[in-house]
Amino acid sequence: MQVQTDNLSPEEEIKRICREVVARVRPDEAERREVKALTEFVIARLNEKAEEQGVEARAISVGSTARNTWVSGEADLDIFILFPPDLSEEDLKEQGLALAKSVVSGRYEERYASHPYIHAYLGAHEVDLVPCFAVKDAASLKSAVDRTPFHNEYVAERVRGLEEEVLLLKRFLKCRGIYGSEQRRKGFSGYLCELLILKYSSFVGLLKNASRWRFGERIEIEGRGKYKDRDRNKEKEKDALVVIDPVDPNRNVAAVVSLDSFCRLIDAARDFLACPDASFFSLPSEAPAKAKAKAKAKAKAKEEREMSRAEFLKCVEERGTEFVMVLFEAPAVVEDVLFPQLRKAEASVARLLQREEFEVFRSDISVAVSAAGEKAFLVFELLVWQLPRVKKHLGPPVTSKHHAEQFKKKYIKLRIENGRYVVEVPRKYTDAVELLKNELGTCGLGKDVRGAVERGYEVLRNEEIKFFPGVGSFFKKYFG
Amino acid sequence: MQVQTDNLSPEEEIKRICREVVARVRPDEAERREVKALTEFVIARLNEKAEEQGVEARAISVGSTARNTWVSGEADLDIFILFPPDLSEEDLKEQGLALAKSVVSGRYEERYASHPYIHAYLGAHEVDLVPCFAVKDAASLKSAVDRTPFHNEYVAERVRGLEEEVLLLKRFLKCRGIYGSEQRRKGFSGYLCELLILKYSSFVGLLKNASRWRFGERIEIEGRGKYKDRDRNKEKEKDALVVIDPVDPNRNVAAVVSLDSFCRLIDAARDFLACPDASFFSLPSEAPAKAKAKAKAKAKAKEEREMSRAEFLKCVEERGTEFVMVLFEAPAVVEDVLFPQLRKAEASVARLLQREEFEVFRSDISVAVSAAGEKAFLVFELLVWQLPRVKKHLGPPVTSKHHAEQFKKKYIKLRIENGRYVVEVPRKYTDAVELLKNELGTCGLGKDVRGAVERGYEVLRNEEIKFFPGVGSFFKKYFG
Repeated sequence: MQVQTDNLSPEEEIKRICREVVARVRPDEAERREVKALTEFVIARLNEKAEEQGVEARAISVGSTARNTWVSGEADLDIFILFPPDLSEEDLKEQGLALAKSVVSGRYEERYASHPYIHAYLGAHEVDLVPCFAVKDAASLKSAVDRTPFHNEYVAERVRGLEEEVLLLKRFLKCRGIYGSEQRRKGFSGYLCELLILKYSSFVGLLKNASRWRFGERIEIEGRGKYKDRDRNKEKEKDALVVIDPVDPNRNVAAVVSLDSFCRLIDAARDFLACPDASFFSLPSEAPAKAKAKAKAKAKAKEEREMSRAEFLKCVEERGTEFVMVLFEAPAVVEDVLFPQLRKAEASVARLLQREEFEVFRSDISVAVSAAGEKAFLVFELLVWQLPRVKKHLGPPVTSKHHAEQFKKKYIKLRIENGRYVVEVPRKYTDAVELLKNELGTCGLGKDVRGAVERGYEVLRNEEIKFFPGVGSFFKKYFG
Repeated sequence: MQVQTDNLSPEEEIKRICREVVARVRPDEAERREVKALTEFVIARLNEKAEEQGVEARAISVGSTARNTWVSGEADLDIFILFPPDLSEEDLKEQGLALAKSVVSGRYEERYASHPYIHAYLGAHEVDLVPCFAVKDAASLKSAVDRTPFHNEYVAERVRGLEEEVLLLKRFLKCRGIYGSEQRRKGFSGYLCELLILKYSSFVGLLKNASRWRFGERIEIEGRGKYKDRDRNKEKEKDALVVIDPVDPNRNVAAVVSLDSFCRLIDAARDFLACPDASFFSLPSEAPAKAKAKAKAKAKAKEEREMSRAEFLKCVEERGTEFVMVLFEAPAVVEDVLFPQLRKAEASVARLLQREEFEVFRSDISVAVSAAGEKAFLVFELLVWQLPRVKKHLGPPVTSKHHAEQFKKKYIKLRIENGRYVVEVPRKYTDAVELLKNELGTCGLGKDVRGAVERGYEVLRNEEIKFFPGVGSFFKKYFG
């Protein structure tokens, strides 16, 4: 089943593909020079201004541009401004932002991680200017971003010579939709990619290992980490992957990686090793690498087009299921805040539906921009959406004297089934849409989603579902 | 809420009701004389004939007529014919049946328990003539019926003076439909009733205790029994009630009592103690004890009439559920063989329905006589009887490399959900009736039910369900 060229062995074919991909995604000399020049310019300006302002601060370059592990065309600069650790948080914020703003001339935004930073646009590049404390070691953090300079220090020299392997991994993950640690994606961060390459020495070495990973796989580069898996019984689920941070043995660098992202890497690793093909490194929106170009171009055209309402309704008809969309205005919060709340709402609404015996086949969430602004939505595909009026209400075991007596006071016509009292009651909601129209507020929604829902929401079924831009591509991805 | 007469206390009211019931159900002097005379006559004839035939055998009276614990009008004689324990099974059978037959003149049948016996009709009475071995003690049984003479010996003298209490209990249980150890009923046998009265000294004493029974309640009259509860994990369910046989510590006299019968006694005990009323001792088909007679008579008339097809369809319409009947000729076996097989079939078919995602709300079984002979049927009331074409098929965890590879060879379009591969496949049966029409044979059916089903069966829904005599009363009881 292996797609080979010129009768190469699978190993040789993989090498050939990787060479091709690296040639495409590695920044060329001109890009590297440009990024280096820009970085040095910003750092020099910052240090100059610090001196002018009499502020004790020092700028350093961190992240992928500092380590030559950025993918061509995606060079975003991370400049950290280190302040003395005995500075107050207040002063750090004030002095840090003032210093950062003093060097940016064009468009910029103030953003917030654990504390505020400046996100600026410099020509074709975006630059994060992040004030932090120059703590002694990663164990003495004053804020989460203080760890970054240590990450940089750890990776920078060790990754030298392995940059191309990191690029291959980042590209491979990006094409699977699992590169990046944003909440929307819950994939693999750039730093995590670098650590995985350090651990396994090469992209292919990582794939070979990943294809045999087990749930909760634990990876330690620097001796034994102290990090303990989160308890399965607690609210958060157990980590799918544990990669001990070499600069902080109490931290799991892969904590954000979802079970699905973890599985998708394992799955793709096996697929690629079994049938190496350049298409593994093509984004859906890009031209296919070579060959089969005509068929692929046609497929691509279809893929790029959003699914139409008519196509969606044909799918629904074929499946025979009921699609229910809960639609509301997206609350004005960043995606990393919004997406966990949408996932929480999805799970809670699914539980409500199941509890009321409406069988959920599948569900998903997303955000898209309608004419009326940004909209968030939950979609539930139901196996059962209408139910008989009669409902079984389970009472206590007959042998529980006290509870039995209470229950019998409340209900007249009861019977005994498997040792318990059972009573038949009228079902409050015989239709799933009615249930959601009336009871959505009883679900566990995040603070911002609750606020948005309280301002109003719609529950739409099948042909009522609105196809504003983004909804079609959501369903195209859903039906795969 | 207590229905009292003449301001009696609940205790006095209970005594009054019990006195009334005893007066009704206790055999009068004439009946007792008649039964005694008949018993002595049969025993004398048997012993005579044995001597004539040169057979070493001795007849004794056992059961309720031997202990004065039969309910008036229900005197069935149990005469056991004891043979020497060194006789062969063959000879016992041959000599026993010959001897029994030699004393019956009218109508009789050969029946089988652990070995054959004669069931004869003598005037208004039915008589069982049961050959058995006169073993030394209950631990040296040669057949299950050999135990009966020991039961008789144990109870006969101990129960003297408590006969009325036994009668009350038997009547109380009969009116709940839980008197008798037949498989159809799985209730309390006469011997069990006597033991319970011996244990608690009175009917009311038993009720007070039963109202506090727990699952697996263990009752021992003669010291510590050796009987161990059946293992919950084995095929058979754990005994709801354990009453150690005083003549055989390895035996649970209440083994046949179902969880439902057990619970119904507990439930009724609490009800009667809380609101003592003579109606607890009235069978549905009998005239009400007193008062409220007019309303009750009207209710009774309705109750006695079978539910009509139109009434049934109105109930179905109101509930909104789907009734599915599996109908076939009852196999020619006794009820004690048939009913466990029907229950087994019911459970197995319900599992099939649930496995295919058709939600079973409730089910029951019965036997009734149609114009075309005796019919057996299973009835399933469904919450969900039609499903979309699409079905989810769960694959292995992504991390199970070998199974994952096998699964991916088999299916093209799969996705990952909660760490497992998932594929959507067409549902084979989108209708529950179609499922049963085609797949009933795959269910676990008893030998005789399987044979009957293989000879042909119908699957009928709602308005298709046939209302031959017995079906109406089945549904009347079902809808309570």
